[in-house]
Amino acid sequence: MKARVHITLRPSILDPQGNAIEGALAGLGFEGVSGVRQGKVIELELADTDEAAARSKVEDMCKKLLANPVMENYEIELVG
Amino acid sequence: MKARVHITLRPSILDPQGNAIEGALAGLGFEGVSGVRQGKVIELELADTDEAAARSKVEDMCKKLLANPVMENYEIELVG
Repeated sequence: MKARVHITLRPSILDPQGNAIEGALAGLGFEGVSGVRQGKVIELELADTDEAAARSKVEDMCKKLLANPVMENYEIELVG
Repeated sequence: MKARVHITLRPSILDPQGNAIEGALAGLGFEGVSGVRQGKVIELELADTDEAAARSKVEDMCKKLLANPVMENYEIELVG
């Protein structure tokens, strides 16, 4: 089973990388772009076949390693 | 209109960051995890209301700034 984890900064946390992208897009002439935020995606292949077990395992991985729950939100998506 | 761009390394490109995560997960006792790859997500708010126009604009942004087409694939998702 394949899992995709989206990790984004919490809305209250400043995102300097997103701001830099926003500035660069404006500099390139792209207008009307705002609220740019950058996050991470982590894709993993799991040996588990049970969806509920896989989800709770990935949730556990997020809490222990993948995300920083103080500053980041995560979203788990299971594929296949 | 909100856009989400997923940028991932092409499958043929080595991903040392993904390998590091895979090693760390194994070290924490998570078994059966393989093929870990790390990518980026960029979220943006666009002033455009036309879906086709917005998509082609974001595609243009990917080619010019957001992604490196030699090493990375990108996927555009429009929300609302």
